[in-house]
Amino acid sequence: MDASVTLPARSAEADTIDALEALSELVSADMERVNATIVERMDSSVPMIPVLAGHLIQSGGKRLRPILTLAAAGINGYNGPNHIKLATAVEFIHTATLLHDDVVDNSDLRRGKKAARMIWGNPASVLVGDFLYSRSFQLMVEAGSLETLNVLANASAVIAEGEVMQLAAAKNLETSEETYLKVISAKTAALFAAAAEVGAMAANASPEKVQALSDYGRAIGVAFQLVDDALDYSSSAQTLGKNAGDDFREGKITLPVILAYERGAPDEQSFWRRVIAETQRDEDFDAAVDLIRLRDAIEDTLARASEYVEDAKRALGVFGDGPYKRALVALADFCVQRAY
Amino acid sequence: MDASVTLPARSAEADTIDALEALSELVSADMERVNATIVERMDSSVPMIPVLAGHLIQSGGKRLRPILTLAAAGINGYNGPNHIKLATAVEFIHTATLLHDDVVDNSDLRRGKKAARMIWGNPASVLVGDFLYSRSFQLMVEAGSLETLNVLANASAVIAEGEVMQLAAAKNLETSEETYLKVISAKTAALFAAAAEVGAMAANASPEKVQALSDYGRAIGVAFQLVDDALDYSSSAQTLGKNAGDDFREGKITLPVILAYERGAPDEQSFWRRVIAETQRDEDFDAAVDLIRLRDAIEDTLARASEYVEDAKRALGVFGDGPYKRALVALADFCVQRAY
Repeated sequence: MDASVTLPARSAEADTIDALEALSELVSADMERVNATIVERMDSSVPMIPVLAGHLIQSGGKRLRPILTLAAAGINGYNGPNHIKLATAVEFIHTATLLHDDVVDNSDLRRGKKAARMIWGNPASVLVGDFLYSRSFQLMVEAGSLETLNVLANASAVIAEGEVMQLAAAKNLETSEETYLKVISAKTAALFAAAAEVGAMAANASPEKVQALSDYGRAIGVAFQLVDDALDYSSSAQTLGKNAGDDFREGKITLPVILAYERGAPDEQSFWRRVIAETQRDEDFDAAVDLIRLRDAIEDTLARASEYVEDAKRALGVFGDGPYKRALVALADFCVQRAY
Repeated sequence: MDASVTLPARSAEADTIDALEALSELVSADMERVNATIVERMDSSVPMIPVLAGHLIQSGGKRLRPILTLAAAGINGYNGPNHIKLATAVEFIHTATLLHDDVVDNSDLRRGKKAARMIWGNPASVLVGDFLYSRSFQLMVEAGSLETLNVLANASAVIAEGEVMQLAAAKNLETSEETYLKVISAKTAALFAAAAEVGAMAANASPEKVQALSDYGRAIGVAFQLVDDALDYSSSAQTLGKNAGDDFREGKITLPVILAYERGAPDEQSFWRRVIAETQRDEDFDAAVDLIRLRDAIEDTLARASEYVEDAKRALGVFGDGPYKRALVALADFCVQRAY
């Protein structure tokens, strides 16, 4: 990231790892069961399915969403086994959306590896995504609660709506911050919220605590996506696991672009109109990064993310102090810290 | 169809319409409610969703699958309302698979109209398909039974497996009849079976009757797909609602091709290897149709379909005579009659 962005100094790498590890350690036994369930349930008599799905699922994703489900069950004292199935279902929904997103966005890289579609093609990626969606609903049925099924089915519908909304807004520089926030709330935060909510529901938590964890999940989901969108203009492919500038090349309207365009002088606005809505040249991405820095758009996007992180922590107010709460607070911080 | 194919003469058009109409009339009040539910539930605050989904859903599909759900409820004396929601869910699953199939197959036409992907693009078709999948699960949750949800979630997974299996078999002339039957049983018949099964389950039918209707649905599903695969080599775009020869151009291995290849002289087999696995010229489709006729491959594919129709009728043996049973028998006949 550019040094001109002024945010509290920290020994970033160490803090970041600690933040996620606190929670990962608390749920590590459960997560091993989730990983075993993932391997078991992505299997199929059709060999291409586990090979393609495994390529993505076992590529070192952070498993943030299933961790949320497990933690939301754990903070409410639940020992299982339904949270394992629900956490696996959540990861399968997420994996299905990634497979479809890479087709929709023509992406080459995912988590630092070739996107599945670059190896097995778009058709296989679409169909294996469909398979994982179906598998996720089978797991939810096994978990045995129509209420949790309802939450995850609703989240799936909202995710698809968010993705279509994003598609419709692509290349449109008149997209408002409000529309952008609606898109990321739907395409990203809805699953974070649902992941936490169903964990709490599996534990039979009170409606107040279920709501608190849903709010927490939604807030860190928004923060997480804001940071992702900032990193697309300020990171290396190595950090990001995908190519920096992917959003730019697709003409995706994210908050950094909205702010830089809004605040730009007339010649800057012409630049944005050309590169987003018309044609791009090789050198345009570097110029875009410069303009985004000039207009403090990364800094302000991250500041916005920090506000959501504070919302997330406030939502945890209904829980007493304890290792799960401290780890969830640390996870919220991690969502922004990973930008540094 | 070619006149050289010898099958019982009949006043085809009139019979065919009567066959489907008998059942359509029995369930017409319910079907109006299904159509209203379809319109209501494909709606979204994201305008592109109902526009794209509506283009396909309201393009004059025969609604065979939801009719099956309604009839399976009706033959067991059920009056609702859960079969309406389940029938709508079934139609949404079907519509989602069509949207994804057209992307997977690069199809231009569907039901005699431009495929959605030709108007709104592949990304929108993938995402609106995902939306309809999610909506279908929301409807199943509302229908309130984990058992029916399980049946439809399993069917969805099997459909995706069938589609991937088909993709893996594409362009492979060594594909056996057995593998082909597995593919169509999964990609097509599983949803016919599930559609009938959940209708019977909604009516609290005995396990024996639930199984009978599932068997009936599966058998007519196989027959239906066999006929579709025959029509691809023997029909006009007008009858078919899509381009004849689509399967051929995609190198899809269907029973007519398997039979013609198996039975072909060495020069015919060379022809098939070139056109399926290597390159195609404009005149190849007409030559393929000629070879398929020469080897009686359409006739034998339709004869195979007729066997499944007989299986389907036998499965109805557990039901006493009555208008529903007679209409289901007529529907089974319709699955093959539509080829004539």
